[in-house]
Amino acid sequence: MTSSPSTVNPPKGLEGVVATTSGICYIDGERGVLAYRGIDIHELADHSTFEETCYLLWNARLPTATELKELHERLAEERELDPAIIALLRTAPRHALPMDVLRTAVSALSFFDVEEKSNTHEANVHKATRLTSQLAMIVAAYDRIRKGKSVVQPDRSLSHAANFLLMLNGERPSSTAERALDIALILHADHELNASTFAARVTAATLSDMHSAVTSAIGALKGPLHGGANEAVFQILEAIDRSGADPVSYVKGMLAQKQKIPGFGHRVYHSEDPRATHLRQMSHDLGHSSGQDRWFDVSKKIEEFVKSEKKLNANVDFYSASTYHILGIEVDLFTPVFAVSRISGWTAHVIEQLDDNRLIRPRAEYIGPVYPQPYVPIKKRQEDKSQPEEKLVREG
Amino acid sequence: MTSSPSTVNPPKGLEGVVATTSGICYIDGERGVLAYRGIDIHELADHSTFEETCYLLWNARLPTATELKELHERLAEERELDPAIIALLRTAPRHALPMDVLRTAVSALSFFDVEEKSNTHEANVHKATRLTSQLAMIVAAYDRIRKGKSVVQPDRSLSHAANFLLMLNGERPSSTAERALDIALILHADHELNASTFAARVTAATLSDMHSAVTSAIGALKGPLHGGANEAVFQILEAIDRSGADPVSYVKGMLAQKQKIPGFGHRVYHSEDPRATHLRQMSHDLGHSSGQDRWFDVSKKIEEFVKSEKKLNANVDFYSASTYHILGIEVDLFTPVFAVSRISGWTAHVIEQLDDNRLIRPRAEYIGPVYPQPYVPIKKRQEDKSQPEEKLVREG
Repeated sequence: MTSSPSTVNPPKGLEGVVATTSGICYIDGERGVLAYRGIDIHELADHSTFEETCYLLWNARLPTATELKELHERLAEERELDPAIIALLRTAPRHALPMDVLRTAVSALSFFDVEEKSNTHEANVHKATRLTSQLAMIVAAYDRIRKGKSVVQPDRSLSHAANFLLMLNGERPSSTAERALDIALILHADHELNASTFAARVTAATLSDMHSAVTSAIGALKGPLHGGANEAVFQILEAIDRSGADPVSYVKGMLAQKQKIPGFGHRVYHSEDPRATHLRQMSHDLGHSSGQDRWFDVSKKIEEFVKSEKKLNANVDFYSASTYHILGIEVDLFTPVFAVSRISGWTAHVIEQLDDNRLIRPRAEYIGPVYPQPYVPIKKRQEDKSQPEEKLVREG
Repeated sequence: MTSSPSTVNPPKGLEGVVATTSGICYIDGERGVLAYRGIDIHELADHSTFEETCYLLWNARLPTATELKELHERLAEERELDPAIIALLRTAPRHALPMDVLRTAVSALSFFDVEEKSNTHEANVHKATRLTSQLAMIVAAYDRIRKGKSVVQPDRSLSHAANFLLMLNGERPSSTAERALDIALILHADHELNASTFAARVTAATLSDMHSAVTSAIGALKGPLHGGANEAVFQILEAIDRSGADPVSYVKGMLAQKQKIPGFGHRVYHSEDPRATHLRQMSHDLGHSSGQDRWFDVSKKIEEFVKSEKKLNANVDFYSASTYHILGIEVDLFTPVFAVSRISGWTAHVIEQLDDNRLIRPRAEYIGPVYPQPYVPIKKRQEDKSQPEEKLVREG
């Protein structure tokens, strides 16, 4: 395209561009504030539950006791996966990546959704509930299946967090572990227009459906620049643990090789990521109560060094790595567990997008061969590939 | 967020915002020009093939005769689907939507991709080839399976278009039908940052992978504001055909009820969509050669009326509806067939995105309850739901 007065050329990656209005997530990157529907994340981490946070995200207010009880029941009712989904999980070869399996199985849930053809606000709140419940079941069931273990039956009396840990580890979690995961799920539930949520909204805005939008989001979350970062953090912790290296020397070595240290810095926050505050505490408390202090100790040393050396703050990914490990979650499930939480925010954003929709269709600035290029008949094309380079002209 | 001097607030849907540079697709909406890598779409429709267009999109130049032969062979070699993918297609219930099945099966292809863990330029060109070949096989195989028919064996000697029609209809197509589909595939192959391609780039930009990006794109294409439009066009043609209504009266009735007429107008083109020119001709020629002139005749009357009444031009979707119907393609496969073509463009855009990547992460303008809202303990929440509405304040 030719850039015309009606086009806007922002920096790469749409940095600083307002792509939509939203009433879900308030972020003040300068002051380190995160709030869902106006309620500070610290309040929610201290007092709320993941189920209540889901209600808040989907309905824009806190539930009454009756409403919360109903949501608990509805989430618990949806914990049985269709046998065809279990069969699909068994189809995946052992080497399949959990995020690939999750993306596929969540996409397949659409086959069995009784409201698949409805895209109303009400139908989408129902789908949000079903998807939030079932996505967690898929993650837990797949981990059991790939290890050759039996799929654990869900327990309807448990919270979402406790039931997930039961189905993953085959035993009821301690109350400390349950609360730790519950808080982690609250902290990861939403974060405005992060890349996966944006992918979900772009998909939904064609008036496609909730399952398509969530499938897009899972695909985006998979990337190491997004959900994959805490896996990279743990790989470092593990390498240090295995080798007995000094954490500061190890990280210095990475910096000397111009490697980025995962789990630090954030495009939006210029002060401490408020989620890191709670995850640091959880990593400490869980490590202490389970006799695995070393993950926290190593993490703390790395954090202090990177903070003083690079002026970078730990982000949400840094302490979730040690926390998830102590909860018995395999490293390649860290990103799927991120999805177990973020599904609540993705679905809230899809509902909001469809309540006041417009197709999301930006433009590209054309930088290819100048138009028109000739269509050279195939017999006249040179076989030696030493064709003169086409003239590259930047338009506009 | 508070809008600050560093943020940009464009119109809804990122209209007119340049989200990236790209050397793939040149569009001049005023003059009605579309070109791939600088070569006009009319040249390609008249002289090229879908396979050659794929090469052009992926490699930024036309292939030599040897290179084109190699690509033909590679596409033909990939026509066998893994038995697990066929099993997955059989798992889908009869009422499943073909786009849901396609999204799920393409996602599952990742399990079996030998380069699943590689995200290099070279690996992604290989994945583009495999996905382009196999996506078409999935569409054809699923249509046979849901009709209780046997899956047709691919014929490696045929072109991509002819083999697809063979596997769909169980017989080799006429050369007119083969060429018609081939041209339709060329015309739909790419269109700059349309919503599905943008979804693919947003997903890929987290450094996720090709299968995730393409799965996102399929989900976005499903929507009636994007790929679903030609299905809506055919439903109108069919309703007119069934009822014997006058096409102009029928469309007048829709306008009187404030309904949009699908297949007209385009956010980017302000003159004739250059793709419509060829599809109109194909709809005419195919209808004439098969003795099914009536679909073209009805379409033409609607086009002339909408053009004179609403000053709207037919877009790519309008004449593809009648064309696909005469080719023996079921109406609910129109969007999957769009994907059979657009996969070539999606994959080209993913390769380009990853060659010079930056995370695509815009911002939202916060319009929710003013921060901070109190966290009211559950016992103090009113059960009668007549809580005072939270004060809605637009920030910034």
